[in-house]
Amino acid sequence: MRIAIDAMGGDYAPAEIIAGALEAKEVLGKEHEIVLIGDEPVIREHLVRLNADPDTFRIFHAPEVIGMDEPPVEALRRKKKSSIAVMARAASHRQVDAALSAGNTGACVAACQLRMRNLENVIRPGIATVFPTLGGPVIVCDVGANIVCKPIHLYQYAVMSCVYAEEMLGITNPRVGIMNIGEEEAKGNDLVKKTRALLKADPSINFAGNLEGRDIFDGHFNVVICEGFVGNVVLKTAEGLVNMIFRAIKDELKSHWWLALQFKKVMTNIYKKYDYNEYGGALLLGVNGTAVICHGSSKARTIKNAILASRKFSTQRINEKIVQRLSQSTVMSNGQ
Amino acid sequence: MRIAIDAMGGDYAPAEIIAGALEAKEVLGKEHEIVLIGDEPVIREHLVRLNADPDTFRIFHAPEVIGMDEPPVEALRRKKKSSIAVMARAASHRQVDAALSAGNTGACVAACQLRMRNLENVIRPGIATVFPTLGGPVIVCDVGANIVCKPIHLYQYAVMSCVYAEEMLGITNPRVGIMNIGEEEAKGNDLVKKTRALLKADPSINFAGNLEGRDIFDGHFNVVICEGFVGNVVLKTAEGLVNMIFRAIKDELKSHWWLALQFKKVMTNIYKKYDYNEYGGALLLGVNGTAVICHGSSKARTIKNAILASRKFSTQRINEKIVQRLSQSTVMSNGQ
Repeated sequence: MRIAIDAMGGDYAPAEIIAGALEAKEVLGKEHEIVLIGDEPVIREHLVRLNADPDTFRIFHAPEVIGMDEPPVEALRRKKKSSIAVMARAASHRQVDAALSAGNTGACVAACQLRMRNLENVIRPGIATVFPTLGGPVIVCDVGANIVCKPIHLYQYAVMSCVYAEEMLGITNPRVGIMNIGEEEAKGNDLVKKTRALLKADPSINFAGNLEGRDIFDGHFNVVICEGFVGNVVLKTAEGLVNMIFRAIKDELKSHWWLALQFKKVMTNIYKKYDYNEYGGALLLGVNGTAVICHGSSKARTIKNAILASRKFSTQRINEKIVQRLSQSTVMSNGQ
Repeated sequence: MRIAIDAMGGDYAPAEIIAGALEAKEVLGKEHEIVLIGDEPVIREHLVRLNADPDTFRIFHAPEVIGMDEPPVEALRRKKKSSIAVMARAASHRQVDAALSAGNTGACVAACQLRMRNLENVIRPGIATVFPTLGGPVIVCDVGANIVCKPIHLYQYAVMSCVYAEEMLGITNPRVGIMNIGEEEAKGNDLVKKTRALLKADPSINFAGNLEGRDIFDGHFNVVICEGFVGNVVLKTAEGLVNMIFRAIKDELKSHWWLALQFKKVMTNIYKKYDYNEYGGALLLGVNGTAVICHGSSKARTIKNAILASRKFSTQRINEKIVQRLSQSTVMSNGQ
């Protein structure tokens, strides 16, 4: 397969993105090809700086870059030659089989949705991200592709995330929960209540009920579905809080250098155990292709992992399995 | 003033609640009276166990208890003699000036809303909680009273939370943000966009724009407003994540007893700096009275702080100031 990487997207682009591509190339296997998308002279120059042959990768030239903070839709309209736009077009023309970016998330999601189109029967794609927890990895979907959801969208996120959990994470019969403000059936807004009914109506889903924010981390659920607005807030709150806690610990240890050193080792071990970079990036589930959204702060190792994840996503034929599940769904055939 | 405490509500009730009431009594001042609500013989027995005079407090007898996990509305309907129901009735009859519970949050909010009624012009009360952050305390409102919000509700949360920030936390001209999935104006759902317009139309509000989940913790905002569904998920996600991180650290230090001991001291210092128990509980803003919702896990010190917070809320005449601000609001008078 051919995996396209947006070489210009992300806080550490293009250096770390290209370095990640080089790392991935070492382990990918000859049958797979990495294609870099971006400013060709810049990419070639960086390859030389990294002591690599400037001809290592095929490059699709894209002279423009969409900035991390640009309004996505407007930027896509204005910058037709941006790396994200060129990458999404290459995917739509089947010149590449997977698209991967650590750049402007909104622009990447919009471009992939527009160009790749949806899988059969999928109404709205959703971003599925993996939270590493004490109880193992938990998939949360959607974290921002679809901020105004209908029950059928959330139902489809559950189906798609289950296939993802089974095929990518090796979880059998994943336990699915809906994010809510309480566990009781009577609690929640209209969206939660109606989605609950759809999930209960599908015997192929191992529906484990409502969950509250704190239950993400206790291992009781493998898949958590929620409206993109809520998922995005959860993801970013978690990120901000982790940063704050570690900064507070660091501040506290400032005057205790020996203890700080010891504790750094402890943190490194914890970091290894709960490292979300292991998963590379978040999958945009429901598009007709493979689209991986990496965090803006991704460095080489994360990019490498994201490339390997996109290979696995594709070779496990996850999209085919999603289409098959949805076509067999009693909920879908009831005309929901 | 007379402050009513639900002696039966919370994971450590009644022992810790009563102990907290005793601690508060020491510092409250003669002009204030604490009234305990609950099973009178049980309360008197606990007072004796705590080496206190069983006649220390006036007690309003309430033989029933609403469990932490009972469906709130149904439980209130069934248990008319529960401590929460009796407390809310006492508040509605002006037998007490403040009501405080660490019991079933939903039941407490519902009972207070029903019995205390709303302040003039307030459409829906909201729960305001304080997040301790590196940048100082941040008020998040609503965290669960109102899960389906209209723009005018969120606008009122901003007005009420500003008064709270100024009077309770001493923050001048608090910076207000709306929780969103991105900082750009164009981003967000309909609720966010319409609320934004209302906040911008009110020159008395220091509106600082949209924020993302991670921005709660960086000190840029003093007041964060959001729909109760979102706020509740944020609050509980934060709680779950903090627990997970400290459990992960503890697990990692299990075989290093000396380091664990040192680190415990570090954690105690951090805990002191970012201790949400300092704030006692969350205020239900917008009801015609003082209602404090404490965390279910509250122990004596938190209850004491909540009692002191309810005194401050009342003596600072926050409700009067809220009514005044809303009556002067150009947004309100535009018939929103």
